[in-house]
Amino acid sequence: MDERIKKHAQILVDWSTEVKKGDRVLIRSHPSAEELIIALYEELGKKGADPITIYTSNEATSTYLLNRDGEMDTPDHMLALFDKSDVVISIIADDNITAMGGVPGERLSTMSKAYKPILKMLMDKRSSITLFPTNSSAQMAGMSLAAYQDFVWGAVIRDWQEVYDMQEILREKLASASEVHITGPETDLKLEIGGMKPVNSAGKHNMPSGEVYVAPHPDSAEGNILFDMPMILRGQEIEGVKLEFSEGKVVDFSAKGKEEMLESLLETDEGARRLGELGIGTNRQIDRFTRNMLFDEKMGDTIHLALGYAIPWSVGGGKKGNESAVHVDMIKIMAKGKMKLDGEPIMVNGKFVWE
Amino acid sequence: MDERIKKHAQILVDWSTEVKKGDRVLIRSHPSAEELIIALYEELGKKGADPITIYTSNEATSTYLLNRDGEMDTPDHMLALFDKSDVVISIIADDNITAMGGVPGERLSTMSKAYKPILKMLMDKRSSITLFPTNSSAQMAGMSLAAYQDFVWGAVIRDWQEVYDMQEILREKLASASEVHITGPETDLKLEIGGMKPVNSAGKHNMPSGEVYVAPHPDSAEGNILFDMPMILRGQEIEGVKLEFSEGKVVDFSAKGKEEMLESLLETDEGARRLGELGIGTNRQIDRFTRNMLFDEKMGDTIHLALGYAIPWSVGGGKKGNESAVHVDMIKIMAKGKMKLDGEPIMVNGKFVWE
Repeated sequence: MDERIKKHAQILVDWSTEVKKGDRVLIRSHPSAEELIIALYEELGKKGADPITIYTSNEATSTYLLNRDGEMDTPDHMLALFDKSDVVISIIADDNITAMGGVPGERLSTMSKAYKPILKMLMDKRSSITLFPTNSSAQMAGMSLAAYQDFVWGAVIRDWQEVYDMQEILREKLASASEVHITGPETDLKLEIGGMKPVNSAGKHNMPSGEVYVAPHPDSAEGNILFDMPMILRGQEIEGVKLEFSEGKVVDFSAKGKEEMLESLLETDEGARRLGELGIGTNRQIDRFTRNMLFDEKMGDTIHLALGYAIPWSVGGGKKGNESAVHVDMIKIMAKGKMKLDGEPIMVNGKFVWE
Repeated sequence: MDERIKKHAQILVDWSTEVKKGDRVLIRSHPSAEELIIALYEELGKKGADPITIYTSNEATSTYLLNRDGEMDTPDHMLALFDKSDVVISIIADDNITAMGGVPGERLSTMSKAYKPILKMLMDKRSSITLFPTNSSAQMAGMSLAAYQDFVWGAVIRDWQEVYDMQEILREKLASASEVHITGPETDLKLEIGGMKPVNSAGKHNMPSGEVYVAPHPDSAEGNILFDMPMILRGQEIEGVKLEFSEGKVVDFSAKGKEEMLESLLETDEGARRLGELGIGTNRQIDRFTRNMLFDEKMGDTIHLALGYAIPWSVGGGKKGNESAVHVDMIKIMAKGKMKLDGEPIMVNGKFVWE
């Protein structure tokens, strides 16, 4: 077994989910990640924790949903399993990322609704989502498997305590700031974050991670922004997205093609036109776009904004975060940009001023 | 997908476990049975039942147990999952049947004890155990994968109602009988089954099945018997097993080699020297020994006896079945044998008298 797989498992168990003796551990994975599952079983055995692995498969789920008509309630055996688990490790892996492509949207959303109480439970668990490199995700990234493995494990196998400490500087600056001002080519946008709660994301719930994020006040965005990287919407790429905000709301938009998809996103609900997240990526091991948001949004020297709901714990006490059924991230490269907090520059041309 | 896999899935869902709308279904399988899992998801989708598949793997379990020291309690997330499941389908499949070979016996038994309350729950569920043909089990049987697939699906894809009806004749005869007398080469054995409860096993809990079995009175066996087929004990074959009984208890034994293994089995506990089962195989699609008891004991024109515990529901009301920690089946070919019930022949040279 590749030594990096063992290291990946150790990081998930020791750092991300802090597994201890007697923990009931639930692993969710496609069998193509079998080597990582076996490496996890080794670490969990050493800890004296008890694993169950449930099988996720796009092919099986697609077959199921194509044949599953009508209403669906929350499956209580799945609910009970999650309820009694202390730790949940979800591994993104599959033989075919697109295998769910033929499932009608309403069946997916029927299933999502039925599973909502289960996913909600994750909030109270030590849980982490990670990725095991397969040919399928390498293909999505346009890379060979060997190059993609180097990319993934380069981003995962890091000193996460050091990442945490470095990000604390940024988190503290955001926590004491009120106005965020982002400028750059075709970009001049102001947001308010006063009283909101910036989060230092250093490899707990996401592995890899490497970002600090915060919920902006939903009615604060003013100005315009160009996103240099494609927005990914239901597996499709929308390039050159430009948004114009007034009183927090998107009042104008454009894109290089597929504008109708962008429009339909914005029309999902009231909150789909407002921002739920400002994130700042710090993971410089992630140096390219791979069409996977677990990696893309953590890219070093970038920021991202999300249309849609705010992550609850990034909203300050007594404050209101944005609400919506959607949450779609859009990435901006900061190589030619600047970010100021209350008028003071903190990021210039992608670098933090204290670097 | 091979049409026989779809048929296999339909039989499991329609006949074996009688899945209905809203059932919570738990599948336990190694991913090498992926095609059968997908076929089951299709059938379960049609029924409107909710599946979860948990991943079993000899390699992962071996790695886990080799690293898992000390005590183990019953994992309550697994307990909750079983508790809330209406139907459990267990699929025997693996890449390597022998992968657990290096795990010390005491760790296996620590795990078995911890999982006992979970397996006990299976008694009250609609549950079925089946096999998906892989190279690993084909190799164990000494066959090519294609030949083994023909063998497995030949035994599985049958009209199980017809099997049930045919076996009812035999079950009724056993239910009204008191003395069983088995004769043949080096064999002359009498058992008492009066008041015990013969079971018509026609593809519910075992798929394939094809046997009628009953618990003998634990102190009734008198005489001697030669088993023509190897006894399988902890993965090893013991050939030419001969047993001599007096007042239900083995008083003498021999085998062609590995007698010490047989002796250690008999010394497990008081019940290991007594019989817990008399079974009569009826599945003539199973026409060869494949080193897998799910198939071997159902072989047409054979009978089998088990040393050790009696299956509870084959013991008559108010009667005592044999108790033991073990249950080991031994098969006798009846091609040159005879079985009488209360002096009346019912099987002569492998054939039932009513055939």
